[in-house]
Amino acid sequence: MTDRQRLITVPVPLGERAYDILVGRGLIGSAGARIAALGARAAAIVTDEHVGPLYASALTGALEAQGLRTTLVVLPPGEATKSYASLERVCDAVLEARIERGDLVVALGGGVIGDLAGFAAAVVRRGVRFVQVPTTLLSQVDSSVGGKTGINSRHGKNLVGAFHQPSLVLADTALLDTLPAREMRAGYAEVAKYGLIDDARFFAWCEANWQGIFAGGPERDEAVAQSCRAKAAVVVRDEHETGDRALLNLGHTFGHALEKITAYDSARLVHGEGVAIGLALAFRFSAFLGLCPPGDAERVEAHLTAAGLPTRLSQVPGGCGTVDELLAAMAQDKKVKGGALTFILARGIGRSFIAPGIEAGKVRAFLDSEIGTSRT
Amino acid sequence: MTDRQRLITVPVPLGERAYDILVGRGLIGSAGARIAALGARAAAIVTDEHVGPLYASALTGALEAQGLRTTLVVLPPGEATKSYASLERVCDAVLEARIERGDLVVALGGGVIGDLAGFAAAVVRRGVRFVQVPTTLLSQVDSSVGGKTGINSRHGKNLVGAFHQPSLVLADTALLDTLPAREMRAGYAEVAKYGLIDDARFFAWCEANWQGIFAGGPERDEAVAQSCRAKAAVVVRDEHETGDRALLNLGHTFGHALEKITAYDSARLVHGEGVAIGLALAFRFSAFLGLCPPGDAERVEAHLTAAGLPTRLSQVPGGCGTVDELLAAMAQDKKVKGGALTFILARGIGRSFIAPGIEAGKVRAFLDSEIGTSRT
Repeated sequence: MTDRQRLITVPVPLGERAYDILVGRGLIGSAGARIAALGARAAAIVTDEHVGPLYASALTGALEAQGLRTTLVVLPPGEATKSYASLERVCDAVLEARIERGDLVVALGGGVIGDLAGFAAAVVRRGVRFVQVPTTLLSQVDSSVGGKTGINSRHGKNLVGAFHQPSLVLADTALLDTLPAREMRAGYAEVAKYGLIDDARFFAWCEANWQGIFAGGPERDEAVAQSCRAKAAVVVRDEHETGDRALLNLGHTFGHALEKITAYDSARLVHGEGVAIGLALAFRFSAFLGLCPPGDAERVEAHLTAAGLPTRLSQVPGGCGTVDELLAAMAQDKKVKGGALTFILARGIGRSFIAPGIEAGKVRAFLDSEIGTSRT
Repeated sequence: MTDRQRLITVPVPLGERAYDILVGRGLIGSAGARIAALGARAAAIVTDEHVGPLYASALTGALEAQGLRTTLVVLPPGEATKSYASLERVCDAVLEARIERGDLVVALGGGVIGDLAGFAAAVVRRGVRFVQVPTTLLSQVDSSVGGKTGINSRHGKNLVGAFHQPSLVLADTALLDTLPAREMRAGYAEVAKYGLIDDARFFAWCEANWQGIFAGGPERDEAVAQSCRAKAAVVVRDEHETGDRALLNLGHTFGHALEKITAYDSARLVHGEGVAIGLALAFRFSAFLGLCPPGDAERVEAHLTAAGLPTRLSQVPGGCGTVDELLAAMAQDKKVKGGALTFILARGIGRSFIAPGIEAGKVRAFLDSEIGTSRT
């Protein structure tokens, strides 16, 4: 543990499943020692062809220097890797590596790798421990926190998976220095989301400090840590998403539908871009229903636009589909209960709430107005 | 709930995951009403080509009469169905049926169907409820109790899965009237196991009453219920198999190795037969190590033999492999911790215990003596 830089620890107090999220620049340099301190004898490192060549050999070397037996599993990058076939491949590789219940799976990569490797860790031997080393802003502030793991089905994203908490999360914010600008922006949509859910002060702080976050100043570490704190607080209240945790889906009902309609084609739309449009739509829909001041919806749109994110259906490359297609895509999303659509709406910035039983007719009228707007 | 016959309820008090196991003759007649009482809107019934034609249409009809939307998924029978491919097929069918978090997966069949459907229920939408309707003696007394679900990997049986407790188990003992005699005997090995673990009185009761169990008298219901009680007591003490639950593996370290060596070919060896040989071996190994009176090992062998079960390596059709092959098969079993072999041994009938760190050399010497014995 020789990293001298500032280190922020975010505890996730989940009883016997409690763990820490560490946030800091250059953290990966001490990852070997920190992971070895968990006491395993062996680790299977799961990564992809983009991240692996950059960081895997240093991590493998550091773990082996600490006496752990390591195995490296390298997968193709991209959302298509969150498949049944990849799950089988990772599970078999982890078993081949003789990972036992006290050993570790280490997810080194973005959300795809974290979700897939975490799911494999959840089901191999009915559960082995795992560590998240998220390498994108999106995975540092969202997918590596909270224990949701899974793969995609032909019926939709993340429809098959498990709740499985990591034993440790190491978020090295220096890794984001080389992240493509588009991925950085996409991750930032989730950062802004935490302010919009229930923390108007944090949203205002983001409006004032977003450039420092992008530039890699101390604001970045603070934004990642605050996002993790916000998510951890919700997860601790509702680990298995039977209630409040659904608030984290602000922007996601629309966002997932757009991802589905664009066939998860990242050339057209990545998750965070879908979320950005979804956030703007959630606030405009709230205003449309008379729940939220129109000025708040405009402020959301203005900030996301300033950060370079899309906020309109017309900005979906190749088109967003028809209103019927959008409604059908939302109906198969897993946030359906008893057949009615559940949305996360807002009474203002930082004042979001779960709105079950929203009639399809109102959604249709709103989407008609949005698509009409985008045509003019 | 019009069944007038005697009904035994075995509660499994697992806090918020508590559920009941109901045991009785003719219970399937009221299964529709009992399942509907759980409050779901839809049910996906998973079964196989043997069981489906016998019971699925009555169950489907009964559920629909109670207002549930039903979907039937019929799989090929046999251990090969516990595969990644079947998991994908069942998950996709359950999603296609729009089963939501409050809805149900119903496993109608033996252990293969229960393990597979339960695993699918554990991972679809990160967990939907499920009901077990076990149709074999083995699944009524073992696999449908305790929440272990899973599939096989090329590295071994049940190496990929989840802990997922059912919401209800309906064990209709009349379904066993038409069970092939070989399957009945195989299931009986697990019944006898519960006496051998920690209940010498129940083992003695089995010695006196086994013919009534096979014939379908009230002894059968009592044996199924007592087995469920015994397993439930262990599961409640150690839901996730970090300690005592390993006692349930009495006979299974040897048994799983034999299943692996016979390539899970049920024409050669079914699970319960492997367990029967494994139980006899565990007691003889205990005697070999000077832990258990040889007379107790002989009594175990005599009773299993009386019930028509194999107890010797020489009884494995096509051969049991070499000692090296047996050791290698045991080493990949998931009951390995820190590289040493863990066995469940016994100081006598009803006095089993977990014995970690058994040296391979002692196992080898014992197996040499067994194979030597079988050759003479």
